[in-house]
This record gives sequence, C-alpha cells and structure tokens, in this order.
Amino acid sequence: MPKPRSRSTPGRRARRPDSDARGQLLDAAVALFAERGIANTTVAQIGAAAGVTAAMVHYWFDTRERLLEALVEERLAPRFNYVWDQDGPESMAPLALAERVMGRLLEVTGQMPALPSLWLREVVNEGGLLREQVLRRVPMQRVAQFSAVMAAGQARGELNPDIEPSLIFISLLALVMLPQATAKTWRRVNPQLQLGPEVLQRHVAALLMRGLQGSGARAAPGAGRKHGRTS
Amino acid sequence: MPKPRSRSTPGRRARRPDSDARGQLLDAAVALFAERGIANTTVAQIGAAAGVTAAMVHYWFDTRERLLEALVEERLAPRFNYVWDQDGPESMAPLALAERVMGRLLEVTGQMPALPSLWLREVVNEGGLLREQVLRRVPMQRVAQFSAVMAAGQARGELNPDIEPSLIFISLLALVMLPQATAKTWRRVNPQLQLGPEVLQRHVAALLMRGLQGSGARAAPGAGRKHGRTS
Repeated sequence: MPKPRSRSTPGRRARRPDSDARGQLLDAAVALFAERGIANTTVAQIGAAAGVTAAMVHYWFDTRERLLEALVEERLAPRFNYVWDQDGPESMAPLALAERVMGRLLEVTGQMPALPSLWLREVVNEGGLLREQVLRRVPMQRVAQFSAVMAAGQARGELNPDIEPSLIFISLLALVMLPQATAKTWRRVNPQLQLGPEVLQRHVAALLMRGLQGSGARAAPGAGRKHGRTS
Repeated sequence: MPKPRSRSTPGRRARRPDSDARGQLLDAAVALFAERGIANTTVAQIGAAAGVTAAMVHYWFDTRERLLEALVEERLAPRFNYVWDQDGPESMAPLALAERVMGRLLEVTGQMPALPSLWLREVVNEGGLLREQVLRRVPMQRVAQFSAVMAAGQARGELNPDIEPSLIFISLLALVMLPQATAKTWRRVNPQLQLGPEVLQRHVAALLMRGLQGSGARAAPGAGRKHGRTS
C-alpha cells in the first residue's frame, strides 16, 4: 500500500478504510502522553496501546516529531479553534462571551478528558514538548479581542470593577483546567472530592459568572474599589 | 570545620556565621529549579549561582536528595503551614476563612516569587520530583476542615448554592498560582497582561469572594466585611 503523506488532509484520510488505525494511534498517544509525559513514552508503547507494532507507528507518522505535529494539528488545534470561534465577539456582551468560552472549554475537556493533563504537562510547563507548537496555534487575536470586550464592558459598568480584564481568560482557564489536570492528586488529599463534569460546570459557572458580575453591574464605572484599604 | 549534620535545626543553624551560605544555596536552588526544573539543574549550577563550588554544595547537603529534603523542610513546609495555620477554622465564617487562606497564599507567593513555577513543575506535575515529599507535608486535616466549613456555611445559606464546597480550595489555588506560574507564557500571548501583586490580589479577591458569596450571603453573620454589598 502507498505510504501516506505525513501531512494528511483529514477529509481524505477519513475515507481510507485503514484510517481508523491512524486515529487510534493518535488517541493512544494522547492518553499515554497525558499520563506519563511525552519524554517517558516510546513509539513501541504507543503502538502496543493501540494494538499495533512500532513499525506501524512509523508507517503512519514517519517520526515521533511528525506524530507530535499530527497530534497538535488534528487533536488540539481544532479544539482551540472551537473554543475561540465566536461570531463577532466584539459585539457580544462580556458576560455572555465569558460564559460561552467557559462552556466551550468545558465541552472540549469533556470530549477529551486527557486534555487538561496534557496541557499541564506539555504546554504550560516550561519544559513541555508541545509548548512551542501549541503557542503558535493559539488564536492570539481572539484572545486579545476577549480581553478588549471585557475591558469595554467593565468601562460601561457591566462587570465587577475590581476584576482585571486581562486576567479573566487565565482565571477561566485555571478554574476549568487545573482541577481536571490534578484530579488524581486531589483525590489523594480529599477522597470526597466531587469532580464530575456537571459538578465542575456548575461550580465554575457559579464562581466565574457571579464573580465577574459582582455588584459592579449596577454601580457607576470605577466605583466600589473595595480593596483599596490597606490595613 | 566540622561537617554539619544533614538534618539541621533551623534555629541552631541560623546562629552559625556561615549559615548564610547554606541559605543562599537553598535560594539559588529554588530559583533554578523553578526556572529549568530539578532534573535539568546540576549541583555545580546551583553552586555557581550562589558563588561557590559544587564541593561546597556537597559539604552543606551531602547529596542532591538531602538538598531537596532541606528545600521542602525549610522553604516550602513552613509556608504551607502558614497558609493553613488558622485558630479554630471550624469556628470561622466560611467567607472569612476563604479570604484568609487566599490572602496568606498571596502573601507567601509574594515572599517567594519562584514558588508558583516550582509548584507547577515539581509538585502538581505527575513527574514532579518534589511531589511525594510535598504531598506528605500537606496538612490534610486542615484541608478537610476547610471543605467542611464551606459545606456547613453553604447549608446555612451563607454561600452561593451552586458552589461545590470540595472544589473551593482547588479553585482558590488555581486562581492564585496558575497566573503566576505561567506569567512568562502569558506575556508572550498578551504583552499588556497586568500581573503585579496588587492587581492579582484585587482580581482574585473580587472573583472568588464575590463568586462564593453569590446571592445567598445576605444572611451571613460576620461574612463579607469588605465584600458586604450584594446585588
């Protein structure tokens, strides 16, 4: 059979009868990378987890580097784009925009439960092996627009005046991703930990939406700096 | 000069004229570990950063393992204890307790700016080399008490009813630590990012305290001193 080009078009690949094997390899790689880290995972282990030989992994991806590229292109980038794909975010109300990005991020981690651990290990960590590739794929303009919408909403008095607009997305990301990425650790500290998708969604929405809204939704812009006092 | 015992008593060591060298080595180690990871830092590099030879590092700490133990005992554990050291937390109002733990965590990261990165790399990460030692030092009982205070307060109607009590501490930790641990990355995405200690404190307090309070806090005795306005 002809060797697949290493940069495949998802649409074409999907029509090949053996394309499942390739997708299963990517899924197996994601799970292993999230669990033990990329540096600690061999091509043979990825093959074994998907029920094929290391030679088959090389057949599909040539090199490990190509496998990482495919993983970012096909498993991560589409999800980032989905989170950030808003029609005209600049025209959305800030709370509606924050809620939508939060909901989509929760949706994406629900579809791909290994994502938070992978993100923590290999993207956020400075030694992470997906870091540079992923950072190149972050839709920077959307992130900047998001902050701009928050800042404008705050200036109109629609947001808690003590919130820092440029920190809202990081806070949202932290609230959604960190508990999921560190669930195993937390269960050791607290076996009663409630971390099902519905609980997390309800908790993050309650904290974030209520916190953003604050009392500033009704107050004059710039009013109510409650922490100005130094004790 | 006599070889120091590897497990020193901080009080005694502090009286030794050369004890500064030991402390400087620990500080240099913390900074390097946070920046490049423990696995990527040699004893010679730690010595060089503190202006001494690798032999001096071995003189003070015998082995690298002992250095890591000293770092956890002397630099990390006292700070965890400070964050959790509450007099009778079970008698505190939930919002006051959350605000105090948050304030102390911010205080501790202000004193030790390398802490969030070190925590992310070497504790939270499953491959982290301080993970087991640090997890043994977490005052589990305090963490459990914290959740119990939150749950009881919520049952009394003092907390936003959509909040999950067992997730409050993780959320607090995420909001305080993640932005600081990933500041370098975020500045690449958004050069306008505001992340000074006052901004972070104001932002996290606004989001967390307002989010926890929700609409149910009106009846809370002693709660929300600075956050008393409800919408």
